[in-house]
Amino acid sequence: MLFGPGPSDVAPSVLQAMARPVIGHLDPAFVAILDEIGDMLRLVFKTKNEVTFAVSGTGSAGMEMALVNILEPGDRVVVGVAGVFGERMAEVARRGGAQVDEVSVPWGRPLDLAEMRTAVKRARPKVVAFVHAETSTGVRQPVDEIARMARDAGALVVLDAVTSLAGIPVFVDGWGIDVCYAGTQKCLSVPPGLAPITFSPRAMDAIRTRRTPVPSWYLDVGLITRYWGAERVYHHTAPISMLYALHEGLRLALDEGLEDRWNRHERLGEELQRSIVDLGFTLLAAEGFRLPQLTSAAVPDGVDEKTARRRLLDEFGIEVGGGLGAFAGKAWRIGLMGESCRKEKLDRLLEAIAAITRA
Amino acid sequence: MLFGPGPSDVAPSVLQAMARPVIGHLDPAFVAILDEIGDMLRLVFKTKNEVTFAVSGTGSAGMEMALVNILEPGDRVVVGVAGVFGERMAEVARRGGAQVDEVSVPWGRPLDLAEMRTAVKRARPKVVAFVHAETSTGVRQPVDEIARMARDAGALVVLDAVTSLAGIPVFVDGWGIDVCYAGTQKCLSVPPGLAPITFSPRAMDAIRTRRTPVPSWYLDVGLITRYWGAERVYHHTAPISMLYALHEGLRLALDEGLEDRWNRHERLGEELQRSIVDLGFTLLAAEGFRLPQLTSAAVPDGVDEKTARRRLLDEFGIEVGGGLGAFAGKAWRIGLMGESCRKEKLDRLLEAIAAITRA
Repeated sequence: MLFGPGPSDVAPSVLQAMARPVIGHLDPAFVAILDEIGDMLRLVFKTKNEVTFAVSGTGSAGMEMALVNILEPGDRVVVGVAGVFGERMAEVARRGGAQVDEVSVPWGRPLDLAEMRTAVKRARPKVVAFVHAETSTGVRQPVDEIARMARDAGALVVLDAVTSLAGIPVFVDGWGIDVCYAGTQKCLSVPPGLAPITFSPRAMDAIRTRRTPVPSWYLDVGLITRYWGAERVYHHTAPISMLYALHEGLRLALDEGLEDRWNRHERLGEELQRSIVDLGFTLLAAEGFRLPQLTSAAVPDGVDEKTARRRLLDEFGIEVGGGLGAFAGKAWRIGLMGESCRKEKLDRLLEAIAAITRA
Repeated sequence: MLFGPGPSDVAPSVLQAMARPVIGHLDPAFVAILDEIGDMLRLVFKTKNEVTFAVSGTGSAGMEMALVNILEPGDRVVVGVAGVFGERMAEVARRGGAQVDEVSVPWGRPLDLAEMRTAVKRARPKVVAFVHAETSTGVRQPVDEIARMARDAGALVVLDAVTSLAGIPVFVDGWGIDVCYAGTQKCLSVPPGLAPITFSPRAMDAIRTRRTPVPSWYLDVGLITRYWGAERVYHHTAPISMLYALHEGLRLALDEGLEDRWNRHERLGEELQRSIVDLGFTLLAAEGFRLPQLTSAAVPDGVDEKTARRRLLDEFGIEVGGGLGAFAGKAWRIGLMGESCRKEKLDRLLEAIAAITRA
């Protein structure tokens, strides 16, 4: 059972969808599947954006696609850094030639709106970028406020929703997000390998008026939309089997209902956090900003995190994640995402943790 | 049945492998699979290169990884252009900031060694890059001669083996290739989504002594080898299910034996080419340079290629590819790759083509 920071458990029907015979990437039957994926992604992202599809790479490819299309050498970008994935956004933007201003907070804290505002006023950036659900710390950022401030300052807003999409509320249009990307292997419970992404008309205008070509050919959204759009011009061969899996995973999520799915994550995440505190763990994300689907917690005194984590895997077949960066060596990251976020699985997880940390 | 330029038919055991439960990308059981994939890829590429793995993207991501790691802004590269995929190499290199000299030949012809030599003498490039099996024309390039000339001139050699690997002989070490990449959905008969790649020690030295960071974070080989190598440092979440599929596809190829597999492609490809000439088609690749696994052929006079191709799909469930570029609207591209390259399938293909083009 997968309770790490992703991948999460995959539903049997998604695995079966992946095993369907491969057909051509320009076959009319396959093209219909692409259209349905686009429609379902718009529902899950809560957006009307026409340019909404799945990148042929993992969540990190989604991050790179978002940033390298919208930024040109010399452009300024303010990146909110609250953990590993914020740092990664800054690094990807720098490699693209952008001038990056990082606004950092200590691990476990949400971004500071006032500091973000100060940085935006000073830099007057083209883009403000940050992570919704920081997988390295378990912190949920107050997206709405930061996005509004950035838009009021005339910036485009890039949001990393890798760990949030289909687990907690994401409102791309409601929040005024210009580029939003996710991963498949978190709350969507599809195997890793694709990155759902959506670009607002404002973002596409900025891309169409670039002075320089997008540095990456593989991730050039202008070229890729000619395949996902009505023209169906060949760009690269679509990852057929993974797209079958995403199609089925989206169907399951929408069948459950997004609101019900968010509630399930909220309820079970709270139960997990209450229960492990009772078991002697210390929650590392600031109160009021804790993600239900990803809990970072310091292990109890006297427990060696690595040994205990290996015992969970070997004796119970349960995977949890180790801490990254500032939390390495003392904390776990416990995911309750998608198919892994089920009451009966949570009960088994808690029994196993109790058995191991008390022994 | 898939007789296009890829994807090719996928063996049932490969589809079943993909449907196995997902486990964590740092799970010791999964890491063992990565090691085995590396070992099998070295056998298929005929190389001892330590840095040999699968890119988390399609063949075009492999192309971009090869070029953006080895080239820096201002570096010179001579690209042999004999079709769409040579043009793509030149474009990817240009976007990476390289100074590109293209050496072109008319569609259907192999690269001209003398012209390549002249261009290399003039440009004194850091890199010479070309495509082994040009999927847009069906031409096989004389790799050995071009690679030797390039190395004698002190250049690194980048070879696109997307459509050749596991279908016709590829000798990475024997030919002195420095970076070689492929796709999974051609002669390996694995679904699209991964790009096997290998870097020589000489290539890795050139990368380690770069003056500038690799522009792509996602495709930075220095970072990725820390995950595929002994350190197992997290970079991005590996596409678990696709890697299961590649593992099984490589096992099948090595089980058959590479030489036997090459012979199967050679024999059936020749039969296809003889047979369609008898049906009134005209082969478009120059004699002596025809790929057995990918045949480009002008349809007989009086046959509308698009209508006939659609009838093949609708009435026989058979996919062939349309012509690209200079061959668009008048030619087909017929793939006989991996699991699609079987005598009984070829017989059904030829019957269907006969029925439709004579009707």
